[in-house]
Formats: sequence, C-alpha cells, structure tokens
Amino acid sequence: MPRRYLSLCSLQEALDRMMCAFPPPDNSERIPLGQSVGRVTSEAVYADYPVPEVNIAAMDGIAVKSRDTAGATETRPLTLTNFAYVNTGRIVPPCYDSVIMIEDTWIEENTCRIRKSAAPWQHVRHAGEDIKSGELIIPKGHQIRPFDIGALATYGIARLNVRSVRVGIIPTGSELVGLGIRPAPGQVVESNSLLAEAYLTGMGATCKRYPIVPDDPEMIKYTVLTALSENDAVLISAGSSAGSKDFTPDVLASLGDMIFHGVAIKPGKPVMLARIKEKPVLGMPGYPLAAQTVLREFAAPLLAWWGLAPFPDVTIPVRLAQTMTSELGYDEFVPVSVGRVNGQDWAVPNPRGSGIQMAVVRANGYIRLPGPLEGIETGSEVQACLTVSPHDLERSLLFVGVRDPALDELTDLAVERGITLHCCNAGNIEGILSIVRGSCHVAPISIPSVNEGFDNPYFRYVRSIDMTRVHIGEIQQGIASRDGLSFDHITSARFLNRQKGSTARLLLDEMLRQRGISPDEIDGYSIEMKSHQAIASAICNGYADAGVCSSSVAKAYGLAFVPLAHESYELMIPTPMIEQEKIRDLLEIIRSRPYHERLERIGGFSIRHIGSMVRMPGVVGPEKTTSPEGMHSL
Amino acid sequence: MPRRYLSLCSLQEALDRMMCAFPPPDNSERIPLGQSVGRVTSEAVYADYPVPEVNIAAMDGIAVKSRDTAGATETRPLTLTNFAYVNTGRIVPPCYDSVIMIEDTWIEENTCRIRKSAAPWQHVRHAGEDIKSGELIIPKGHQIRPFDIGALATYGIARLNVRSVRVGIIPTGSELVGLGIRPAPGQVVESNSLLAEAYLTGMGATCKRYPIVPDDPEMIKYTVLTALSENDAVLISAGSSAGSKDFTPDVLASLGDMIFHGVAIKPGKPVMLARIKEKPVLGMPGYPLAAQTVLREFAAPLLAWWGLAPFPDVTIPVRLAQTMTSELGYDEFVPVSVGRVNGQDWAVPNPRGSGIQMAVVRANGYIRLPGPLEGIETGSEVQACLTVSPHDLERSLLFVGVRDPALDELTDLAVERGITLHCCNAGNIEGILSIVRGSCHVAPISIPSVNEGFDNPYFRYVRSIDMTRVHIGEIQQGIASRDGLSFDHITSARFLNRQKGSTARLLLDEMLRQRGISPDEIDGYSIEMKSHQAIASAICNGYADAGVCSSSVAKAYGLAFVPLAHESYELMIPTPMIEQEKIRDLLEIIRSRPYHERLERIGGFSIRHIGSMVRMPGVVGPEKTTSPEGMHSL
Repeated sequence: MPRRYLSLCSLQEALDRMMCAFPPPDNSERIPLGQSVGRVTSEAVYADYPVPEVNIAAMDGIAVKSRDTAGATETRPLTLTNFAYVNTGRIVPPCYDSVIMIEDTWIEENTCRIRKSAAPWQHVRHAGEDIKSGELIIPKGHQIRPFDIGALATYGIARLNVRSVRVGIIPTGSELVGLGIRPAPGQVVESNSLLAEAYLTGMGATCKRYPIVPDDPEMIKYTVLTALSENDAVLISAGSSAGSKDFTPDVLASLGDMIFHGVAIKPGKPVMLARIKEKPVLGMPGYPLAAQTVLREFAAPLLAWWGLAPFPDVTIPVRLAQTMTSELGYDEFVPVSVGRVNGQDWAVPNPRGSGIQMAVVRANGYIRLPGPLEGIETGSEVQACLTVSPHDLERSLLFVGVRDPALDELTDLAVERGITLHCCNAGNIEGILSIVRGSCHVAPISIPSVNEGFDNPYFRYVRSIDMTRVHIGEIQQGIASRDGLSFDHITSARFLNRQKGSTARLLLDEMLRQRGISPDEIDGYSIEMKSHQAIASAICNGYADAGVCSSSVAKAYGLAFVPLAHESYELMIPTPMIEQEKIRDLLEIIRSRPYHERLERIGGFSIRHIGSMVRMPGVVGPEKTTSPEGMHSL
Repeated sequence: MPRRYLSLCSLQEALDRMMCAFPPPDNSERIPLGQSVGRVTSEAVYADYPVPEVNIAAMDGIAVKSRDTAGATETRPLTLTNFAYVNTGRIVPPCYDSVIMIEDTWIEENTCRIRKSAAPWQHVRHAGEDIKSGELIIPKGHQIRPFDIGALATYGIARLNVRSVRVGIIPTGSELVGLGIRPAPGQVVESNSLLAEAYLTGMGATCKRYPIVPDDPEMIKYTVLTALSENDAVLISAGSSAGSKDFTPDVLASLGDMIFHGVAIKPGKPVMLARIKEKPVLGMPGYPLAAQTVLREFAAPLLAWWGLAPFPDVTIPVRLAQTMTSELGYDEFVPVSVGRVNGQDWAVPNPRGSGIQMAVVRANGYIRLPGPLEGIETGSEVQACLTVSPHDLERSLLFVGVRDPALDELTDLAVERGITLHCCNAGNIEGILSIVRGSCHVAPISIPSVNEGFDNPYFRYVRSIDMTRVHIGEIQQGIASRDGLSFDHITSARFLNRQKGSTARLLLDEMLRQRGISPDEIDGYSIEMKSHQAIASAICNGYADAGVCSSSVAKAYGLAFVPLAHESYELMIPTPMIEQEKIRDLLEIIRSRPYHERLERIGGFSIRHIGSMVRMPGVVGPEKTTSPEGMHSL
C-alpha cells in the first residue's frame, strides 16, 4: 500500500507550528571584522574610546586662539605670533581653539598675518565629534553593510559577535552522483545540497554538506544523528514524498516528533519538519524547484526567525501576461519573466514543472498564487517578487514565442549592448497573441519559409496591427530515421509526430493533405513529441522508425536525413517599436558578422536572408483580431 | 605656497573621462561553482548534455503503453500484463510512453488493474525537458544567483569563467595604525582599505590590501608600482588633498598621466585619477565619508563599466525633514535616516562632516543634492537611495532630538520586538519642530526636571497639539572641575559653556539670572562645547577650569563634581500615536526591568519616575504654533 501524507496543512499553519516548535537558540560566534559583511550582530557594539580622541584639525593650516584674531579684516590685517602649524587630522594643542586654513594666511618668519577673524572651533573636530566613549555603534540585530566596516575599524572593533546558525545538509538518493561526475542515463548530479549551501550561506548561516547517502534507512538515520550532533539545524534532501524508496519520513518519525509532513504548496508539497533532540530537521523534496521553494519558504523564514537577515526582496506590481490556473487550497509559486513593455510591467509565467530548473534560471522573479484562488486572468495585476535588481527591467527585452539556438546567440551578443533578453518559450500562436496584446516586445516565430509555397496561418491574427518580421535564420526540416527512410515510407514506419502549432507539424499536415494521405494511416501520428531532440532520441533508442526534425539534430544523433522544406526563424515586432533604441541595437546585432559566425558554428543554419525585414502594415477597418479562444482552437 | 587642485570638473565629466580612458579589460578567471554566487559570467555557459538525458518517471508508479490502457473505466477496469515498476526520477523504458501513479493501480501477482486510461506521456519527463544538449544556460554578463547554482550543478557545470578585476588597495598616512592597535591621540586606525576591500569584494572584485605606507614620496611610488604590477587597478587612500604632506598627486603625476584631480562633489572633492602603465590609479581622500563617496561614485562605476555587477540600490521618493543648503555647482551626497510616519516617508539629514562615520552607520540611505541647486526646502520631495531593505522602513521608528545613552539602550532592546530605532541627533527645538511637523514619530528631549522649578520654554511650541511626554530617565548636572569648584567660583575660573538649546546652558543661564551675574563676567562664556565629554576632556587637559556636565561623565574623567540640578530625558509623542503598536511596544520596553537594569549599569541615571507620562492636551483656538523662524531665534 502506498503511504499517504501524515497531514496536509496550509503554509501559514506550517510556519506557525515551526516557529512555535523552535524558538531562537541565540547562538553567536566571534568573527574578524573583515569577514562580517552581511552578518547580523548578536549583541550591541559600543565604542571603547571617543573619535577623535582629542581636538584635531579639519584642515591644513595654523591653530590659533580665536580671541587673538578678533578684528582682523582685509584692510586691517592682524599679525599673530602665538600659533602652531597643524595638518589635517593632527592634534590641535589644547591652548588653541580654532584653525585658519593655510590658504588664508601669509607666513613671514615666525609671525603670521591674517585678514579675517577666526570663529571659535572653526575647522576643529571636537573630541568625540564622531563618537563618544561608551556610545552605541550598532545595536544587536544589525546586518553589517560594507560602509559599516570602515566605521567599526576606526572605532577599534577588530572582532565582533554575530548570530550564528550551523546547518547540516544531507543529500539522499541512490540515483545521485557528485558534481564533476558525468551522470549515466537515470542518474542525476546532486545539486540540492550545493543550492542549499549557496542560499543559506548568503543569509549568514554556516553550512556543512554531508556526502550523498544512498536510499538506506540505517545510513540515513546514522547521518541525520551525526549532522544533528554537529549543527543547530539539519536539512535533508529527497526521500520526502510518498514513494516506495522514500525512507526519510519513517526515519525521522522514529527519531523524534513530526511537526508536519505535507503542506498545501506547489511545488514542495511533500516538505516535512521533525523535532529530533530539540533541533529541527527539515525534509525537502528532491525535485529542484520543490527544494528551492522549501528553502525559500521554510528554511529562510526559520533562519530569519532565529535572527539571521532575510534576503532583501523587491516586489513590484505587474500584469499577468497569460491566464493561469492553480489548484484550490494550494499556495503556488510560479517563476516569471518580467519585462517593461511601453511603460507597463508584464510577467510571463515560465513552465511550472518542478524538475525544470531552467524555468528559474531564465526567470527574473516569481509570483505567488494564493490558496483561495483557482486561477488568475490575463491582464490581472499581481505582485511579482524580483530575483534581479529592479534596474535590470529598464534594459530588458521580453520575447515570447518559439525558442531556438539562434535566440541563444542573440541573447549572449545583446549583453555587450547592455540588453538582457528574456526568451519565454511558447508556440507561434501564443507568441503572436502576446505581441498583439502588447505584453512582450518581440515574438520569435518559426514558420515554413515563404518560398516553400506554404500559407502561414498565423499571420491572420495580426491583421489589424502594423507588424514587421525580421528574418534571423533558417534551418532545414526533413525525415530523420536510422535507415534513410523518406516521406514515401511514412505509412509503413513507426512514426513520431510533433505538437500542434510546430512548424514540423504544419509541414507534415500540409504534405499529407497534398498527397491525400489520412492521418489515420500513420502509426504514431497521435504521439506528440515536444522537440527535435526528443524525436531524434526516440528514433535512436529504437522506440520509433522516423519523425520530422532538423538536419542538425538528425546529424548530431547520427541519424539519416531526407530534406523536406526550410523553416524560417523570424522576429515579429510592432512596426512603431522598430525605432526604439533597444530594438535598433538588436537589429544591428542581427546584421553583424559575429552573429552570423555563431550561427555557422552551431551548424545547420542558412544565413542567406538574415536581417531582411518584411512589413505587414495591417488592415485598417472593422475587421478585428480573432479572439484568443478562436486562436487556441487552431 | 599651498598647491591648488589641477582642475575641478563635474562628476559627470569625470566619469566620462574615466570610462574613455579605461575601456573594459575583459579579464576572467575560472572558479569552482560553489564560489560563484554574486560573480558575473565572462562567457556564455551551454549545456553539455540534455536533462533529463532519457525519458524518466515523474511519479512513483507503473510504466505502460498508453494505447494498452484505452477504454479502462471505473465500471470496466482493465488488466495489464505489459508494464514495469518505476520510481520517481528513474528511467521509463523506451517501449513505454506513460506512467500511472501507484495510487491508481491495483497490483495482483504479475498483473495490474487500472480503472482509468492513461494519456500518452502522462507523468513522463521527456528527454531534454529541462535543457537540451548545447542549449544556452546563461549568457555572459549574468550575475550568479543562489538558485542558479542548483541548475548549473545539475547540468554538470563544476567550474565556470567569471569576470575578474584585481584591485590593489594602498593606505597612506604616517598617522595611521593597523586595526587591533589602540591609536594614541592624533593617531587613527587605518580603515579605508578595509572599507574598500569589503565594498569592492561585494561587487566581485579580487582585492589585495597593501601595508600602511608612511607619508614618504619614494615609499608611495614604490608601493604604487608594486600594486600596479600585481593588479588591474589601484586605489590609494589619503594624501589626495592639497596639504603639505600630500605627496600622492605629485607621485602619480610623475609616473603617468593625471586624468582628473578635483571633482565638484562633496564629500570627496580631492579625488584624483591617473593612468599609469595603461592602468587606473584612483586616489581617494583619507576622510572616511569622502573615501566612501569616491568608492561608490567612482570605483563602483569603473568596475561596473568593466562588467562587474553594481550593488542593487533601491530608490524611493521621500520628503525632506529639514531645509538643506548646498554649495552651487557641487553634487553633494548626504546620509539620511528615512522613516515612514503616518504613511509618509521622511528623510532626516545626518551630519555632513566628512569625518563623522556614525552619520552613515546610523543612516539607512542617502540623498544627492545636484550641482545646480543651492538648497532644498523642508517638505520637498527628493529621491533617497536606501542602504537597507525597503521592508525595514515598516518596522522603524524615527526619533529626532537629543540623543543620550538611554536612547542607545532603548534602541538595542527594541530590536527584540522587531523595531529599529533611528535616532537623529538634534537640539530640543529641532526635535519639537519635527514632531509638530509630523516628520518623525518621537522627539526625545532633555529638559530641567519639572520639580527643579524651571520654566520649560520649549513647551510653548507645541501649544496647539495634543502631546504626551514619557519620562525615560534622569541625570544630575553640576559643575565639573579638577579642584572641586562650585558655582560660587564661576566668575573667577576659566569656564567652558555649552551650546544654546542644551539643558546645561538653560540651567546656567537661569542660575546666572537668579543671582544677577552678567555673562560678560564669565571668562569663556562664549566658548560653546558640544557635549558633556568635550567639557570634561577639556578640563582634564587643562584647557579650562570648570564647566557644566553630568555627574557620570565627570566621574568617568576623574573630575570633581558639585551638583546643580536634575536633567530629565523625555520622549515627546503625539497623543494619538500612543496607541500605535510600535509605540505601545516601546512603552512596554521603557517600563521593563531590563531597561532599568541597563540604565543602572551605565550609572548616573535615576530611574525613579521612568515610564511616567504627562499629557499636554494642547490649546484649542486661534493661537498658532510659533513659526519656525521664531523658534530658531530662541
């Protein structure tokens, strides 16, 4: 019998139970000043001595008694005999109370002429002006900033006490290999412990990673107890869902009390927290995005509750670029790419699969869909928490459409112009809908080349809007197989199809139509693969005999290739935007030699038409853009 | 003859010259992934292999052929014989295209019953779903975030190339001692190199600090050349103004070209930049706040121009709580304490002396007064750049008024309630003006205790507003001297006065009035010291014979003390604010045992009336608060 979760509580309830079970331990350590940036003081720091300790000169000049200078004017200069030279920062002898800048004096032998009286304490830094003996420098709970370092050094603070939390991090799973080892198929590089270390170290925790523990209850138990004896808290990765090899829940339950197991969040539902030897053991799922969510929503709040400094997050209002559904009762966290299009910030959701780490790498923020909601409509205002500086939004271009290797190269080259490209993968239709809606700058699309004689059905969605298409590269599509099959063999082979909306699908359907072949005649027409690579890999593995993919992918997998047609990559851009600086820079890159060289290096690309532009001025009149519902049904 | 600056250019012109003179050197280094958080990639990072590499199960369950499952329903379950058990993350054998969750199956011997058909690719993670072989992971110029680490590890990236800038930091000055050595009077702990290291390391630079170089041109020259040979850029601290011991400008000019010397900014005017052996040498003044400004406004932009990541700054609109003047033509940077009072963010300027580092430690932001302005009026909207998380503003209380050790203790204890106190030092009058204006939460004031029979002149400024005063401590003021002088000796001793508005001054003036003594009869009446400590220190040093200060300070300096009267510390709070949660917490702290114990530990405090509150309900009617002009002239 499969096990069920012990319970499924809300995020807020889980956090309440966590804080209640684990009051701050108030641990601290004494560290050198130079290592203290970002750490949080565990006690107030007071000054041992005043700064300056005595009156000192604030300027290079002469120290005088201010009363001696009374009456000096331009027309009636005064000659002083009682004075002393002082440099900036040096002691003003106690008998003097004022400093005259060297520029305002005329020195002659042992006398000095001045043309202006000096006010008492002019250009003198009082003893204790900066800080007095015994005065508070920083209270406890203060996170040290770089500029605090200079002040603390000046006040003689060479070491200080900061809050300390030692966290032991245990990765478990027999499928894991260490970083640096090439994983065999079915193996995975252990990354959650590195992630946890990077994240929690950034909060000021002292992390210790333990070696990978295989799926063995006794070894897990032994490692948990070891980590508990050496740390204030323990994080254990994987083994926390309800599968047959998930031993962590039973191990933790056997060692102490389970505070919760299963929380209504996505990703991260199987999170668990146990109290063992009075210390917290937090179990996070192995799935990378689930692990991230548990780190951010549980581990970070626990350390913040214990007095470490949370990561500063910047939340901004954005409009959602795509309708999202979410399961009622679950708090769901979704990585988004935020871009500022014509002054409005839009958030495009990235894929939510909890194994898709690139969704977070490509994202510059995330949004939270609260439990009581079943979904949020396109255009609704939501709060996005940014994972980059808000200034980055100013220099970002948001792409929504078909991602391909040419875009990777554009992304990298754009950096040199100070432009960050955010490319959100979507089909042609979703990309075009976005550009029509105004929720992205550019829609990269992939269409059969115009000279192939195909009708491009996507263009009808932009009829009412003035658009310009910029050609950025071309590849060849064809039949890939182990044995050199051609289109003529399509009804006799085990075939793999691509998803609706892809150019390969469009090509196939058009050719079937032209030859009068019914889809029912093709074995595997209903199996939709999501990429060239998936097609090629499946054919290599013998799962199918043939499929449509690009020449370069077929070549990379060592497959035979029979060409069918060219596929053109284009950027669809609203014509008025073409003149904007960032777009102009982008067009320059597209036409530049380095871009062409990079496409040639990737291979499989034809660069003959790159940079050519086609304007589609749009139809003025009553005809409207087809409604999104209509488009989706294509 | 004193030297003048070579030139004085604007900040923008200086930055333009800097960027023009020093194009990005594009240096990089290869570092382990675990050390890469915060660093910026120097080249694009691509995936070596797809993830997942083959199709894998997304759930624990059985792998099936989806076509075998067609037609299974609740009422007509179907029995499968061709299936394989799979755990989450494990390979789905190529002959299967779907996974059924273990919970939805009924296993019997070697067969399995299902009650629902399985869609193709259900619960299967496609090969390449996360990333494809050769796909871009991150472009160049990407600052690594903690969550990127997990993804990079998963994709097998164990090391990566990041932008690298080596900065040599040279402190100069014969008055400097190293951290850990107690400075003698006139000596200073060298702090600028520590500050620069902390700040620039935070941007991802690799810093090397050189030992302190005394004011000796040959030694400075030797160290600059050594640092240049070991680094990409050199920072040299102090010796950059125009004083007699400032050798740096001549040394740098003798070694290369001076790009600029003297920029119209405050603080930091003497900043200089030279090009020596094609590398930049940036000279920053020794004054800590000037050094900070040069780091932030020159060194950071240079490193950002060279491709490192600037510190993320958050700028918010605030209202200025105090009229500020600034010198025409100078860009001036002023540390401010920002607080949110009744929903409005106010910025209180901190002292601008370039030696007062506590101004920056106490500040949570800074504002820039642009060159073309001569000043900004109270209440004007300006942009404040925050040095703390914007979330901190929610839990801050802004105090403007007389700072004393009792407030230090309140500040430290408030941290336990999650409250950050920002105490801006000002006189009683400025504090009361602020609380009347609504630009702070609390005005700490220091007044002669009510039972001393003094009239408190400050209270007339709050006549129209309902205020509550909370007593937070009491100290004894009296005559401090080396020889036990009393008030009767005041006309025969060398005396030191305190500034107008201070309680000591108020006491003195009242007692002189009562006894009919004219200020002219007192030697030193016009010399205004700014603190108890300054009085005591001057008397110790023999500069004067007597002055008014507190019993504890007199005791700390080993001086004789003859009591005069009690001084009461009070918090003036608008009565409607008393019920706000943060203020209620504050009042609880004031009445708590730990606070009283801390005052007793400091010594000199009487705690007999602590926490007592006096309400001044305000006069309703035509009488208005005196205008600020009138108040300042008190």
